[in-house]
Amino acid sequence: MEKSSCIHFCFISCLVLFIVVGSWYRSTNSSLPNSTLQTPWSTSKNRIFSNSKASSVLETQAQTSIDHSAEAPHHPLDPLTVQEINKVRTILSSYEPFSFTLPTIHTVLLDEPDKVQVLKWSKGDALLPRKAQVLALLNGQSHVLTVDLDSSSITSHAINSSSGYPMLSVDDILAASKVPFSNAEFNKSIAARGVSSSDLICLPPSAGWFGPNEEGKRVVKVLCYSKESTPNFYMRPIEGLVMTVDLDTLEVLKFSDTGREIPIPKSTDTDYRYTAQTKEPQMEPLNPISIEQPKGPSFRVEDGHIVKWANWVFHLKADHRAGLVISRVMVRDSENGELRDVMYKGFASEFFVPYMDLDESWYFKSYMDAGEYGLGMSALPLVPLNDCPRHSYYMDGIFATPDGNPFVQPNMICLFERYAGDISWRHSEGLLTDFQIREARPKVTLVARMAASVGNYDYIFDWEFQTDGLINVKVGLSGMLMVKGSPYHQAPNQDAMSGPLISENLIGVVHDHFVTFHLDMDIDGANNSFVNVNLVKERSLPGESPRKSYLKAKRKIAKTEKDAQIKLKLYDPSEFHMINPSKRSRLGNPTGYKIVPGGTAASLLDRDDPPQLRSAFTNNQNRDRSIENKDIVLWYTLGFHHIPCQEDFPVMPTVTSGFELKPVNFFESNPILQAAPAFEKDLPVCRPSASP
Amino acid sequence: MEKSSCIHFCFISCLVLFIVVGSWYRSTNSSLPNSTLQTPWSTSKNRIFSNSKASSVLETQAQTSIDHSAEAPHHPLDPLTVQEINKVRTILSSYEPFSFTLPTIHTVLLDEPDKVQVLKWSKGDALLPRKAQVLALLNGQSHVLTVDLDSSSITSHAINSSSGYPMLSVDDILAASKVPFSNAEFNKSIAARGVSSSDLICLPPSAGWFGPNEEGKRVVKVLCYSKESTPNFYMRPIEGLVMTVDLDTLEVLKFSDTGREIPIPKSTDTDYRYTAQTKEPQMEPLNPISIEQPKGPSFRVEDGHIVKWANWVFHLKADHRAGLVISRVMVRDSENGELRDVMYKGFASEFFVPYMDLDESWYFKSYMDAGEYGLGMSALPLVPLNDCPRHSYYMDGIFATPDGNPFVQPNMICLFERYAGDISWRHSEGLLTDFQIREARPKVTLVARMAASVGNYDYIFDWEFQTDGLINVKVGLSGMLMVKGSPYHQAPNQDAMSGPLISENLIGVVHDHFVTFHLDMDIDGANNSFVNVNLVKERSLPGESPRKSYLKAKRKIAKTEKDAQIKLKLYDPSEFHMINPSKRSRLGNPTGYKIVPGGTAASLLDRDDPPQLRSAFTNNQNRDRSIENKDIVLWYTLGFHHIPCQEDFPVMPTVTSGFELKPVNFFESNPILQAAPAFEKDLPVCRPSASP
Repeated sequence: MEKSSCIHFCFISCLVLFIVVGSWYRSTNSSLPNSTLQTPWSTSKNRIFSNSKASSVLETQAQTSIDHSAEAPHHPLDPLTVQEINKVRTILSSYEPFSFTLPTIHTVLLDEPDKVQVLKWSKGDALLPRKAQVLALLNGQSHVLTVDLDSSSITSHAINSSSGYPMLSVDDILAASKVPFSNAEFNKSIAARGVSSSDLICLPPSAGWFGPNEEGKRVVKVLCYSKESTPNFYMRPIEGLVMTVDLDTLEVLKFSDTGREIPIPKSTDTDYRYTAQTKEPQMEPLNPISIEQPKGPSFRVEDGHIVKWANWVFHLKADHRAGLVISRVMVRDSENGELRDVMYKGFASEFFVPYMDLDESWYFKSYMDAGEYGLGMSALPLVPLNDCPRHSYYMDGIFATPDGNPFVQPNMICLFERYAGDISWRHSEGLLTDFQIREARPKVTLVARMAASVGNYDYIFDWEFQTDGLINVKVGLSGMLMVKGSPYHQAPNQDAMSGPLISENLIGVVHDHFVTFHLDMDIDGANNSFVNVNLVKERSLPGESPRKSYLKAKRKIAKTEKDAQIKLKLYDPSEFHMINPSKRSRLGNPTGYKIVPGGTAASLLDRDDPPQLRSAFTNNQNRDRSIENKDIVLWYTLGFHHIPCQEDFPVMPTVTSGFELKPVNFFESNPILQAAPAFEKDLPVCRPSASP
Repeated sequence: MEKSSCIHFCFISCLVLFIVVGSWYRSTNSSLPNSTLQTPWSTSKNRIFSNSKASSVLETQAQTSIDHSAEAPHHPLDPLTVQEINKVRTILSSYEPFSFTLPTIHTVLLDEPDKVQVLKWSKGDALLPRKAQVLALLNGQSHVLTVDLDSSSITSHAINSSSGYPMLSVDDILAASKVPFSNAEFNKSIAARGVSSSDLICLPPSAGWFGPNEEGKRVVKVLCYSKESTPNFYMRPIEGLVMTVDLDTLEVLKFSDTGREIPIPKSTDTDYRYTAQTKEPQMEPLNPISIEQPKGPSFRVEDGHIVKWANWVFHLKADHRAGLVISRVMVRDSENGELRDVMYKGFASEFFVPYMDLDESWYFKSYMDAGEYGLGMSALPLVPLNDCPRHSYYMDGIFATPDGNPFVQPNMICLFERYAGDISWRHSEGLLTDFQIREARPKVTLVARMAASVGNYDYIFDWEFQTDGLINVKVGLSGMLMVKGSPYHQAPNQDAMSGPLISENLIGVVHDHFVTFHLDMDIDGANNSFVNVNLVKERSLPGESPRKSYLKAKRKIAKTEKDAQIKLKLYDPSEFHMINPSKRSRLGNPTGYKIVPGGTAASLLDRDDPPQLRSAFTNNQNRDRSIENKDIVLWYTLGFHHIPCQEDFPVMPTVTSGFELKPVNFFESNPILQAAPAFEKDLPVCRPSASP
């Protein structure tokens, strides 16, 4: 039976990579089919930065955010400014259908101009018309509006009737968090547990649809934790207590309490804050170490969003839903210096995090962190020197609150040059020949980073650019596990549990993480083809050679989307190239980039399982349109299987995986042949800061 | 047919990981079954560093090697010293069977004491008896000798009668390189090509057995290149010209010339030396960047080989064959500071690099770079600031020359602390709750590195130690491709070629790289078990849950070696744990480490293909001994499929892959919870060196 399921998965399912035409993307919990990003999560400034109870020593190092109040857009892809968001609110306020009540604003986003227009635009041209896309909720109905900022008018208005709902707003979350406390059953239950309600914190970590019974309702599951004696309440679940709350009526649709016999795990050793540490670390302390650039970093940021570094130029912006978006990525040709297109747009489109526990209080835990909470809205300010090295440049995010006001998330993205002691290329000669050669080049890269704290989990996103043309996309996982209370202090038969015991009375439930990336590759222009370069084992003919077998690379251009649905196979390997069929190197090779997979875990859930139905973007179902020599988008799903362990308690050491976008016959030859080595005379002279 | 071959590979073959008892390892081209390392490649000092024709600007930065002449061993695993190698030679010289002629010395290596004795030994104890293992060749016979340095006697002497031969010596290589020039057919052939013999360089890059016709002979294939106008002769093959040379008689057993119509590729743009670059790079220059530690690095090296850093202690040494060997790896327990065993020994045991071309001058290209050439002997001095960052510590290698004299390879290994701007762990809080938390810790690691230049290819080996207990083993590939001359200037039907055109008249032949690592894990002691933690998809019972499927982690302890032969499967995933069944965490979890695969390419060659027969260590064939709770060794094969591209010409940007050894319930909780963040006040004050 296991073998047959393996055959099934090897040959039928488990997409990791697929292609669709254009940049259209839609997930089932979102109601904006025309948006490429759909970032409908917003919050109120004063709600977010008030009531600070515990403060961290690291906060004091945060840099002050710059004043955005007078900023104007410079590039057609620049996000909406503070002034523009204010203008959207003014226009909405005087819009007749909303004259009685302004709806709750879930997103105010730039309605990006058509790609064709953006590609034609160049600096100095008049800015393309600025439009905002607004996603709002009023009386349980989702409104989708286009606001023309130039004419101060609303040019389209639709009430969404398809399945799915906008991303949760902070108002939704705060309202849902309060619901339990006025529920009699809840209060009885926590009293029976001997918990004071002032020690409780309730959260709606699970939004979305969990099967036919909940269809057509905007529901969340509300769970509670004890924050008594620790800020790490995630490690103190009130196990088995779950309320299904209707977000529009704030009714408790279902109350479930199956865990009264399960103790609340202890608070001891859960606090991870530096100021709370009392034990000495059992290791020798490390001397200060730092990436130093006394002449400053080599990149510059023009007009707020255009990043220029070495041979790269790209547009970088913060985004409500995706966190960070990289657009108009161009690299300089190594022969003639010409700027060449590589990617029109790249971002994390959606997350899918299913937990592997069927209990009443667990089955629904299958998060979609981008579409439900927003990676951008969850990205709190980065911590200088610790989240990003010295000499980093910080970029803020500007979003809208539920009442339509602009809100600045400071230091949301950092940009830094990285030297990790690695080698860009090398060769030594002198052992076999009479050439005496010692050539090596240090590897210096540019990293754009953001980190989303989506409740318990922290997701670190890195887009790393190399001078050899490679783009390395990485996702790091840290923060806290989603844990389950347990009656056990000792691991009994773990086969009966949904994960290992990671502390007393705490189970780290097995789960997966899938991150689907939208990669609108434009190799030397918008029209590209997708090529599967399959390595096939061939047998030699009798008498042909002492060798009996060899591999042969066979290129196959995908004609339609179905051809491009990829199931990675270790024993039937392929390279996956995005090429421009109209552009060839001097040798006749098509210019291209390949995607080098990493983090290859695939979802093994059944296709008809509700979480997998919602997260069907991690399958390879799509239409079967023609994709040859068209403006196509590559979708890559990065996956992690996570079986927790004690080292993940109380906060997880970062686990990182990613994939690469790597030039393949894009350059005529090694583009960093001329790179200079490092010389002692050029390096900085440093002294410890404490010395005189 | 392709589908059936995929089924075959999914279920029958393609090992990536397997286990055998003890540390015994043997490859078919080596004659030392009792040795764990077998590093029989050596060279003469004066041969290596003479005749330098072209010199590199980078050489001037090389650090001066220290004087090793008076060094004594301190630890039972310390490599033989200069004095000890001299003593071995003296003992051999007066050994009666060699009184007429001293054999050619292929290796003089420490004969490591039994593991049990080494584990008992501690600093301050008398050093364990010092013995050398000598592999020598005389009149075509391989002699294996044990030399007792304390009693100055030879305690064992065997003449090898099994298959395989010692690693090539530099004498072998030099002799073989000269053979063509006195061969009439060869001289006629190069004259017909219009090549002057003074522009030629000949090398024996392919040693070993290539099918039944060559069994029982010590043969190499000699190939030639034009070094006219370039030091990068690898890019100028005299295609189709190959001589099979008997290394003992220096006879040309077979002469083959099938490529007279193929032009020698041009020298233009092949020179990669910095001093030879005339074109300006088409990118903005980078400001100096450096990892700075004004208080110095935090590690120390005691007694020449014991490395101590943060919570790690290990023994590090250079090795003829393996390059670098890490032994006695211990990490400090995060609760009580106790030093705990993790790994007794780790090293790259063998390489296998098959090329996918059946032509008469190509079929045999299937290198075993460790056993044929020696990764240590091929490791030329590292280039400071470029191969390794500032503040690196350099370690030399001490080997024996063919005449038995000691030879010092300076700056062969570097050791450095690395800060790459990465995050060790993080969490932010403040969006959903009233806690205001910004906690993040910078990730600082320790790297031990060596780089072998095995002819054209450069292999960079990193062993990276993290404070969270993780060991990250990486192999980087750079240097030059093994290329094939071609009549074509433009890519015609590439299906007929064994790889893409990467420059005019040059084909980058498709090939694989497999590196098999010997990992003698000792989790809390020598006796360990191997556990396959399989993630199995289960279906929910009817009515049990709205969910239909979930994953379940099922642990299975391998009883015998066959149980531990692993075929990685993306759609039937597992974790692979090495545990100590006798030691449990406070929660009852067995203490363990898992191997996290990376670089998962597997050899697809037929099992009966000569290169695969020689490199059968990349299959999973072994005995089926009992391995539960025994002193077992984990073997991991890291693989790369390489389809070359133009960017790989004339020198390849580094491609890196690796695997991790990661603690799983080894520590009671996150061992770096107490780690300190970086503070501005502790960081260095730097100025550009050029400023006053």
